[in-house]
Amino acid sequence: MAKIKIGIVGATGYIGSDLMRIASTHPNLEIAWVTSESKSGTKVHELFPNLRGYVRDEFRTLEPEMLGDVDAVALCLPHGGAMELMPTIAKHYPKLKVVDCSGDFRSPDIAMWEKFYDMTHRAADLQARFTYGLTEFNRDAIRKAQWVANPGCFATCIQLALAPFARHGQLRGNVHVSAITGSSGSGNKPSSTTHHPERAQNVRAYKVLEHQHLVEIVPYLESLNSENDFEVFFVPHSGPFVRGIFATCFIPLNERLTMASVDALIRDTYENEWFVQIVSGTPDMRLVQHTNHAMLTYRASGNVLVGMCVIDNMVKGGAGQAIQNLNLMLGLDEKAGLATPGAFV
Amino acid sequence: MAKIKIGIVGATGYIGSDLMRIASTHPNLEIAWVTSESKSGTKVHELFPNLRGYVRDEFRTLEPEMLGDVDAVALCLPHGGAMELMPTIAKHYPKLKVVDCSGDFRSPDIAMWEKFYDMTHRAADLQARFTYGLTEFNRDAIRKAQWVANPGCFATCIQLALAPFARHGQLRGNVHVSAITGSSGSGNKPSSTTHHPERAQNVRAYKVLEHQHLVEIVPYLESLNSENDFEVFFVPHSGPFVRGIFATCFIPLNERLTMASVDALIRDTYENEWFVQIVSGTPDMRLVQHTNHAMLTYRASGNVLVGMCVIDNMVKGGAGQAIQNLNLMLGLDEKAGLATPGAFV
Amino acid sequence: MAKIKIGIVGATGYIGSDLMRIASTHPNLEIAWVTSESKSGTKVHELFPNLRGYVRDEFRTLEPEMLGDVDAVALCLPHGGAMELMPTIAKHYPKLKVVDCSGDFRSPDIAMWEKFYDMTHRAADLQARFTYGLTEFNRDAIRKAQWVANPGCFATCIQLALAPFARHGQLRGNVHVSAITGSSGSGNKPSSTTHHPERAQNVRAYKVLEHQHLVEIVPYLESLNSENDFEVFFVPHSGPFVRGIFATCFIPLNERLTMASVDALIRDTYENEWFVQIVSGTPDMRLVQHTNHAMLTYRASGNVLVGMCVIDNMVKGGAGQAIQNLNLMLGLDEKAGLATPGAFV
Amino acid sequence: MAKIKIGIVGATGYIGSDLMRIASTHPNLEIAWVTSESKSGTKVHELFPNLRGYVRDEFRTLEPEMLGDVDAVALCLPHGGAMELMPTIAKHYPKLKVVDCSGDFRSPDIAMWEKFYDMTHRAADLQARFTYGLTEFNRDAIRKAQWVANPGCFATCIQLALAPFARHGQLRGNVHVSAITGSSGSGNKPSSTTHHPERAQNVRAYKVLEHQHLVEIVPYLESLNSENDFEVFFVPHSGPFVRGIFATCFIPLNERLTMASVDALIRDTYENEWFVQIVSGTPDMRLVQHTNHAMLTYRASGNVLVGMCVIDNMVKGGAGQAIQNLNLMLGLDEKAGLATPGAFV
Repeated sequence: MAKIKIGIVGATGYIGSDLMRIASTHPNLEIAWVTSESKSGTKVHELFPNLRGYVRDEFRTLEPEMLGDVDAVALCLPHGGAMELMPTIAKHYPKLKVVDCSGDFRSPDIAMWEKFYDMTHRAADLQARFTYGLTEFNRDAIRKAQWVANPGCFATCIQLALAPFARHGQLRGNVHVSAITGSSGSGNKPSSTTHHPERAQNVRAYKVLEHQHLVEIVPYLESLNSENDFEVFFVPHSGPFVRGIFATCFIPLNERLTMASVDALIRDTYENEWFVQIVSGTPDMRLVQHTNHAMLTYRASGNVLVGMCVIDNMVKGGAGQAIQNLNLMLGLDEKAGLATPGAFV
Repeated sequence: MAKIKIGIVGATGYIGSDLMRIASTHPNLEIAWVTSESKSGTKVHELFPNLRGYVRDEFRTLEPEMLGDVDAVALCLPHGGAMELMPTIAKHYPKLKVVDCSGDFRSPDIAMWEKFYDMTHRAADLQARFTYGLTEFNRDAIRKAQWVANPGCFATCIQLALAPFARHGQLRGNVHVSAITGSSGSGNKPSSTTHHPERAQNVRAYKVLEHQHLVEIVPYLESLNSENDFEVFFVPHSGPFVRGIFATCFIPLNERLTMASVDALIRDTYENEWFVQIVSGTPDMRLVQHTNHAMLTYRASGNVLVGMCVIDNMVKGGAGQAIQNLNLMLGLDEKAGLATPGAFV
Repeated sequence: MAKIKIGIVGATGYIGSDLMRIASTHPNLEIAWVTSESKSGTKVHELFPNLRGYVRDEFRTLEPEMLGDVDAVALCLPHGGAMELMPTIAKHYPKLKVVDCSGDFRSPDIAMWEKFYDMTHRAADLQARFTYGLTEFNRDAIRKAQWVANPGCFATCIQLALAPFARHGQLRGNVHVSAITGSSGSGNKPSSTTHHPERAQNVRAYKVLEHQHLVEIVPYLESLNSENDFEVFFVPHSGPFVRGIFATCFIPLNERLTMASVDALIRDTYENEWFVQIVSGTPDMRLVQHTNHAMLTYRASGNVLVGMCVIDNMVKGGAGQAIQNLNLMLGLDEKAGLATPGAFV
Repeated sequence: MAKIKIGIVGATGYIGSDLMRIASTHPNLEIAWVTSESKSGTKVHELFPNLRGYVRDEFRTLEPEMLGDVDAVALCLPHGGAMELMPTIAKHYPKLKVVDCSGDFRSPDIAMWEKFYDMTHRAADLQARFTYGLTEFNRDAIRKAQWVANPGCFATCIQLALAPFARHGQLRGNVHVSAITGSSGSGNKPSSTTHHPERAQNVRAYKVLEHQHLVEIVPYLESLNSENDFEVFFVPHSGPFVRGIFATCFIPLNERLTMASVDALIRDTYENEWFVQIVSGTPDMRLVQHTNHAMLTYRASGNVLVGMCVIDNMVKGGAGQAIQNLNLMLGLDEKAGLATPGAFV
């Protein structure tokens, strides 16, 4: 069977690099081209020696015509990049399937988006044409979607814990979330917060109560059921590890969401989901590193339910979910290229 | 000036080892003896080569008479060990000052203690004679105390964030705490959760909503002011680092505890405290490693106040606070032996 | 095409676990059974949650008859285990293909073996029937082999750097090797040297000049060409990471091994090897983690050649090379199940 | 007793920061001022919150007059900075004691220096007036020195292993050194090799056989005894930890340097040295972190002696040895401010 051709725009970042890694052994996809402004002309394996033998391309400057040579593109540009490109795609390549890994089109609340991202949205009119790519909860829409806004890493992890309840209108009151992420989440540009001597034995908080993923989490969870009535208070932390997110969510139990109902609801939500596993005890973050899997558990006491979820921020929280969504959009097996177990250590 | 003689009981554990480290350069204390059941006869520096030249003793088996040779002892036994020893001290060495680093005498709620520690308390009658050693909040009592129950590591970190409000009766409703600790908190006995391959890139939760430090946190905070009316829901996590705790506390704002009042109250609480620093932005956990300092910050939004605190679990959360308390009990400068800055990296 | 059935003996260790991980997505192999003495009856995914959905078996006690149900077995027992089992296989299952991941049959020098392993060899007569499994140098023999002794992790890494010269009889004089390994090399049993607080920021040496892998390295390199005349002085180190080995070899240049000849010889040796890459500058150990790849580079000055090699100790240094050898022994594509790129971070 | 006033030039780097840390609790030194070009006017504790309460100064721009206000200065400028400043000091402040932590004046071989440092030396005529600050081997000269060139971090660690033999003219033939350093050695400027995601699980080599510390190691060891006749081949590595160096040295045994003589010679060299400990088994690098101590051991086999040494690159390999030298130059107790034990974990 002929492989489906995809292009990767902005492939020198960590998400782009992981997307090349996964796509390079995907049974049904073929990387037709990868682009980079700054590294045009450089062989991929010179920048990413791990891909030698797997990705033979060199980085190219994106020319619009190239968009006509592929069936789908993954956009891995910095925030603000996709909104520059989408009008061209909308106008000239209406059949092109797009998965956008940036934050540009994840939120229907443009005013809030502009506030949290601190930039003017230049393609706000196109936002409504994007389907939100939280695969396990939006699968049918993604299958039919032309364009998918791939969720943020924290957003994926937190919503996998909260969405089962939001779908049933059971999210009420204050939800408190404390989550910790690895350094790969900061991308490939060195800075003091990712400088090894300052990161290696450290934990710190940042963007306390004002992380930009809130502008996708809240609208999406609200959209699942009009009876939800909640606020999310989210404290992100930086941890001394490379890959992974561990999210701990304090969720109010209430008359709709009771301890008795949680187990059945969770089982019902996830029992047929290949990529989400309900575990007992605790999720161990390391077990999902380099995989598209999530692990999840719940524990309750008094009127509080604690939901804990782990993912790999670069895979299920980025490149992997993008492939998962592309698989659906292209009519492939959702698991294609992604069904690889993590390592125990 | 003659140095004051102290003994360290159970000095082969990590807390005991750190206590020897600090005491060895203390200007006013002299280590008279250190004990160990299993290592009796071994030179301290054979087990702890870092102490060669600093601690010349060998581990001895504890004989009751030795208690008569010192002014104070630090008990660093496993939980359950101090309650075996205290009756002897109470009976035969009533003038001996004692700091107990175990959990045995931290909680006045013996029933709850027995449930969380899963053992029978064998010296419950002595508990009331212990003073709780959260130095910054109990200084006057500690100065006069014969026996001090040194707080747990998580308990210290969390209470430094909550006690300023508890003291004013402002703690109302559900307090949610997510905290992460380094591997040294598990002590010196290897196990699968501290096995390097399984710990190094991992984050996991444990004792979710049922950590034993709750049995000291709740009674102590309640004791500060009868108008408090709260519950604490605490999720401890294990992180891939050696020393330190980062605690993130979600505290309900209410009519008594308002955003407007927080700043002044915190400043008022801590501005003269040498070991507690209010920082802006975020506490960086690494900056307090190997020190007796805590760093603390607050951020609010809506009706939620987030308090974040970092300490070194082994020092301010253990051996350092024990020395701080001993300093007070022995009439020394509270800072003696402890006023050393952390490293930047 | 029907898959080939394999059994894994001793599958609860780290090498066994990684072998299950790789075999579970191998296109041509099917895991027929996995064994464990201590965990018999336990589901694999209970011990290794990372394998849930990938390996559905439970651990079984090895019964000899099971050996008749499979085409090949991988032995992942502790050192000393394979030599107990091989006589049975030799006698009753002569057609069974065997890859032994232990050290039992790697060295033809039984006296030396007994000295370094500090045990009596109970099946010394079978040693000569084993083929040494350093794939890139012994491929033809492995293809025809019934039994393969899979090399040790350090032995693999060091020999990939030295064997190109040994093959041409160019190894003369003292070879000095300094190598550092991750904690996974110590296996799944917690001990003080793998206790996270003591390992996480540490480097230490061990078995200085007397590591047991010397008993396979020296005889094998000597066997490649009778003109070699060398000694290996090897200092193994433990590093604060989980997977990987970085070996630095100081090799004497001489009249047969000159700077001028090195480049061509290395290129000639490895240019068609999929799993070995010659890099410029330095190998980066992280790039081969979780893969069967090695990266290698050389630099010379004066009369000294420095060869540096990195592998994943668990994959190319263990389970991966075992699969690579099984592929050859079973007539499969050597790369089957192993052609997956590492991650960049 | 009045404290001696010192100035620290270039105090925003890691060595400068650690020097402030140590000096801030030194019983006999007082920091009169600290300078920085780029941070002039900033409070020290704003950049280094760990020093709040310990260092109350703000960074100042260096004005020559300030040199008249102190008894000694520590220069912590980037390489090339000290040689710009020294002519002024030589001319106008001839009584000022100077410890230079840069590489500028460590090597008498200016031609070689210029090659390895890749810059023109602008104050070559002053080099001979500097005393090399390897304290344990040059103590008497340092006591009388006006200016001291503080050794490099690798240079300190390697020479502590080699100098005992060099002093007796026993260094003959090729010495092979493999050493690994923590990320703090790269200073405070983020780059790809210290970017946490790329450093955290990695080992790599750099400047293979051409590290600039060779230009101080070789001349200094040669200077100790004219009968030495050796070359040093040095491969530096970067490891995934923050502080520390582990150096492994392969030293040829010969008719002057025999296995029989090593033990006595080493004991003789170091038995009265407070900061150097001979250990059995292996040095554990973590035990010297944050301290001025070195740990050292030797093992021999055949005609090869292996010496292994660990230090903290920032302390004994930088700021600590600078203070140790200042203590001597200023007539203080050599241990003043430095006699603090490391932590066990």
